[in-house]
Amino acid sequence: MIAELRERIENYSYLGPKGTFTEAALALAPEAAGKPWRAVNNVPEAVQDVVEGRSVGAMIAIENSIEGGVTASQDALASTPGLRIRGEYVVPIRFCLAVRPGTKLEEVTTVAAHPVAYGQCRRWLAEHLPAHSHLPASSNVASAEQLFEAGVDAAITPPTITEHLPVELIASDLQDNHTAQTRFVLVGMNQQVPEPTGRDKTSIIVELPEDRPGALLEMLEQISTRGINMTMITSRPVPDKPGNYRFVVDLDGHLHDARVADALLGIRRFCPKLIFLGSYPRVGVVLKQADLAHSDERFAAARAWLASLEAEDAQDDRASSPSV
Amino acid sequence: MIAELRERIENYSYLGPKGTFTEAALALAPEAAGKPWRAVNNVPEAVQDVVEGRSVGAMIAIENSIEGGVTASQDALASTPGLRIRGEYVVPIRFCLAVRPGTKLEEVTTVAAHPVAYGQCRRWLAEHLPAHSHLPASSNVASAEQLFEAGVDAAITPPTITEHLPVELIASDLQDNHTAQTRFVLVGMNQQVPEPTGRDKTSIIVELPEDRPGALLEMLEQISTRGINMTMITSRPVPDKPGNYRFVVDLDGHLHDARVADALLGIRRFCPKLIFLGSYPRVGVVLKQADLAHSDERFAAARAWLASLEAEDAQDDRASSPSV
Amino acid sequence: MIAELRERIENYSYLGPKGTFTEAALALAPEAAGKPWRAVNNVPEAVQDVVEGRSVGAMIAIENSIEGGVTASQDALASTPGLRIRGEYVVPIRFCLAVRPGTKLEEVTTVAAHPVAYGQCRRWLAEHLPAHSHLPASSNVASAEQLFEAGVDAAITPPTITEHLPVELIASDLQDNHTAQTRFVLVGMNQQVPEPTGRDKTSIIVELPEDRPGALLEMLEQISTRGINMTMITSRPVPDKPGNYRFVVDLDGHLHDARVADALLGIRRFCPKLIFLGSYPRVGVVLKQADLAHSDERFAAARAWLASLEAEDAQDDRASSPSV
Amino acid sequence: MIAELRERIENYSYLGPKGTFTEAALALAPEAAGKPWRAVNNVPEAVQDVVEGRSVGAMIAIENSIEGGVTASQDALASTPGLRIRGEYVVPIRFCLAVRPGTKLEEVTTVAAHPVAYGQCRRWLAEHLPAHSHLPASSNVASAEQLFEAGVDAAITPPTITEHLPVELIASDLQDNHTAQTRFVLVGMNQQVPEPTGRDKTSIIVELPEDRPGALLEMLEQISTRGINMTMITSRPVPDKPGNYRFVVDLDGHLHDARVADALLGIRRFCPKLIFLGSYPRVGVVLKQADLAHSDERFAAARAWLASLEAEDAQDDRASSPSV
Repeated sequence: MIAELRERIENYSYLGPKGTFTEAALALAPEAAGKPWRAVNNVPEAVQDVVEGRSVGAMIAIENSIEGGVTASQDALASTPGLRIRGEYVVPIRFCLAVRPGTKLEEVTTVAAHPVAYGQCRRWLAEHLPAHSHLPASSNVASAEQLFEAGVDAAITPPTITEHLPVELIASDLQDNHTAQTRFVLVGMNQQVPEPTGRDKTSIIVELPEDRPGALLEMLEQISTRGINMTMITSRPVPDKPGNYRFVVDLDGHLHDARVADALLGIRRFCPKLIFLGSYPRVGVVLKQADLAHSDERFAAARAWLASLEAEDAQDDRASSPSV
Repeated sequence: MIAELRERIENYSYLGPKGTFTEAALALAPEAAGKPWRAVNNVPEAVQDVVEGRSVGAMIAIENSIEGGVTASQDALASTPGLRIRGEYVVPIRFCLAVRPGTKLEEVTTVAAHPVAYGQCRRWLAEHLPAHSHLPASSNVASAEQLFEAGVDAAITPPTITEHLPVELIASDLQDNHTAQTRFVLVGMNQQVPEPTGRDKTSIIVELPEDRPGALLEMLEQISTRGINMTMITSRPVPDKPGNYRFVVDLDGHLHDARVADALLGIRRFCPKLIFLGSYPRVGVVLKQADLAHSDERFAAARAWLASLEAEDAQDDRASSPSV
Repeated sequence: MIAELRERIENYSYLGPKGTFTEAALALAPEAAGKPWRAVNNVPEAVQDVVEGRSVGAMIAIENSIEGGVTASQDALASTPGLRIRGEYVVPIRFCLAVRPGTKLEEVTTVAAHPVAYGQCRRWLAEHLPAHSHLPASSNVASAEQLFEAGVDAAITPPTITEHLPVELIASDLQDNHTAQTRFVLVGMNQQVPEPTGRDKTSIIVELPEDRPGALLEMLEQISTRGINMTMITSRPVPDKPGNYRFVVDLDGHLHDARVADALLGIRRFCPKLIFLGSYPRVGVVLKQADLAHSDERFAAARAWLASLEAEDAQDDRASSPSV
Repeated sequence: MIAELRERIENYSYLGPKGTFTEAALALAPEAAGKPWRAVNNVPEAVQDVVEGRSVGAMIAIENSIEGGVTASQDALASTPGLRIRGEYVVPIRFCLAVRPGTKLEEVTTVAAHPVAYGQCRRWLAEHLPAHSHLPASSNVASAEQLFEAGVDAAITPPTITEHLPVELIASDLQDNHTAQTRFVLVGMNQQVPEPTGRDKTSIIVELPEDRPGALLEMLEQISTRGINMTMITSRPVPDKPGNYRFVVDLDGHLHDARVADALLGIRRFCPKLIFLGSYPRVGVVLKQADLAHSDERFAAARAWLASLEAEDAQDDRASSPSV
């Protein structure tokens, strides 16, 4: 019944309201195009939508988020059985100054902004609006909505705000850091791993066994001895277990690559608390090709060799063939 | 002149206003007790105070912050030459509901809260104040200040708010996650490394050379072959260098421990972009003792042995002593 | 036909003549008991007997031999396709002084001895027969045969000589080194790997790929990451390839132990010149138990976990069962 | 007194008699040219000459010897305190057929030969002298001396025999293996390490601590993390300690190379039974250059960096200089 229901459900959840960076990330996901989107209040709510079948996918921030939620995302991935990453999406962090159409920069005295966004644009504000006052907003979109309330002249918002509200952008790239970007992942409960595309990554979470000194290095060796490149690693203290760590790790390659499957087997053996978060196409170019020595062909050749070690009868058959 | 000025400066900067978790962390630092504190707007501003000599120290969040700034802190540590961590402080994340004295919970209709704090208390709010409306605040302290404006009945604040404002707490532990805590570090420009206490940690940032496959494992082996325990590792993309990573790493031990100094030498040799952030007392117990094989005594014994390999003349002198 | 012939052939070859340490080793092999034994002149001849079907097994020295042949044995194992070690046997190196019955030590003036054996007993000879003269013999048995020629009073021989010749031993343990022993292996062409006994070792020869720096360490990590203990390693220059090495390696464990098979797969992938020499019961106690983390059970559990990662339909079936 | 005596002693000991491969190796050592040479009976005797001051050097076989002694050499190096390798010398193993001048091959019926040499030439003998009989000799030189006794027509000897005896060589390259060679080392008690030549190797013997699982890999990592190439490794059971091993290891590089000294320090710390056997010029070309990352310059730069971490006062001095 739930499975049937799930098939009919097509919602995607994201940290709302409309106009957030998270929504911009969701707009990059082809599978969400044309489907209903649910704006929710925070990451746990988005994940819960997926777990309880209200949505088939949730877009959550996993790295460098301006809208918060990275820690919540990591903890949700570590503690929600069955959750899988379906794809990753990267959104540059850019802020604009939005006004009611016609307002000029010199007329601005009060700026509505989410406190975190406000903190990211201080340098620009100090230079261009040294005398402004700040009105806090609950989100990067709510700030623009406040333009239509009394006493607000400008709002700090993402560039996409003009798709949602009748506002005008009179300045852009207000943020201090011009290369910042947030990485998001789209998560679902569907366990079918997508086919390899040739430029995939695999995400795992490993909680190291506490009784095993050197376990981190042992874990990393399981990865490196298969010639696999690691693109991210973050340690996180395990809640309620002082001194224990789990590691969120991204690997180059796909579960269907023999070297990746073999590395997961190697980690799983000494480290039963291994969570497979998914294999999915990575954003950006793959910088390092896997060594030929760790190709699927080599795995197959090695297995064939191992099998041949005991193929005694076959060999004896050849030896005793009529032609001898 | 600057040095003299610095001696007279005793300010400590922190993310204000008074009443933030960052201020609570600063209150834990013995060296800041009784000195003037400067509340600033964000992490880069706090760090800049130190760099430019306005303060001798800045308290900044380095892990799991509710007030933002972790990424900014890591980037400031990576890009500010000479910055040193002087100590670490851990503050539990706890939120209370503050009201004007006499207000009862059932009278509350509007709640002022920093959007991130608000997001952390949704479960409690849904249960106890299902019908409230949210007024965003620019900080966890500004929310309480709004109690004295029209239309606000309650504010979400840290428990310390009562030290700063004449408010009453009518509920506590509102946060969804009851074990959350933020780790802060106190940074300064003073290069003198504090004496070892026996329970120290050492923080470094390593930017791996891009032309060296397996460099991460090589770096970690430099640590593990000296028997050093790693307590945190986080990869961060290097701004403007796609595919390059720097790693923020915490090690058990002090720069004055021979094994730690030797590991830094080992990393520095193949990885010139190594930043030493400091050795300082760690919070909490040390869970793993360093192996005897990596003790200072062993380092000294090995060096004496190496020196003896060429002490030919000394041996011949003994051999040709009068008694022979 | 060859196969049929082989079944009827029961010979065992060894470095003769009767009475050598190699024959003593062959006497330890249960499968050779009661079968015809062929004394041959050297290790290559013994191996050739097996390759060409004249014998089912050959006993050859592999470590510390007093009778020569270790290098020849290693080279034969490396260059003879299909050769397999069936078992190992350790014989202590002990020399006696044999005489014609009735001869007394003080009557001995000429000692027949194989030059290598003679070199091992110089201390005893200098003490007990300071004035003797040495007559070289072609083997440790030929020396005793010379007792029945004119001019030889005594012979240096293994203790087993009395089983072959009517001689008397008037002194024993003549050898300078009282703990020396030779390790032998029994080799054959039978590819069927014997069943594990719980105290097995596995021998391999690995020729490292020349284009891969760090290949030796990579090879050893394939062994160590599976928790396998290595009991012997010897590098040997590859004939005609200056600067290339092959390594003769003994591992604790059996090919049927999942961790050993997996390690061989790992080595084989980057190092195609891997020769499996056999899994066979080891002599002596096993000193280190394999870690539980590398047990067959863990390998099976890890594989089951890997398989479950894509068992989506099975899980959905459960989810959509009638009871829901 | 001993030191003075030593200065006057110039003897070099070798496994005699004149004409052995060991003597041929000694002829390659420039420092032995023109000095008196002592022919001794075996490796321990040669080493004892050095220990007790009768010789300044002893040439002993260390790999692949046709004249025996490799095991004895390794054990002497492991158990003789103060012994140092001064140089290595490689001699190809070639055997000739020597006769009294005028004898023709077809006249040969009896061949004198050391049994080991005889074993190495069986193929040639089977082809060219199928009906000969073998008379054992005590060395590869004694065989030729027997030509002047009744009943011996030919002798198997090294090519250099004509320098010592009035014999004629009527066939050469009799040995089955045409690429065989023996590696010798010249050992002494002089602890002064010779200056680096740029193509040096360093030999050590390591007895692993028994209580430390994974000690072999840990030892090898100390070598590999400094970018050092290992050119030989051989495990040897420790006499009287079942299950314990020592490893004879050759490294590319010289004790005066910072990376080699640092690797020895690293091994020495966890493995006190480390014997330094010497740094000396290697035979043959160096195939792999050490990585720049492990150059002396990098070691120096890293140490300077480490020192600078605490050079607080120096920096403050600069900061407070009059010009500021």
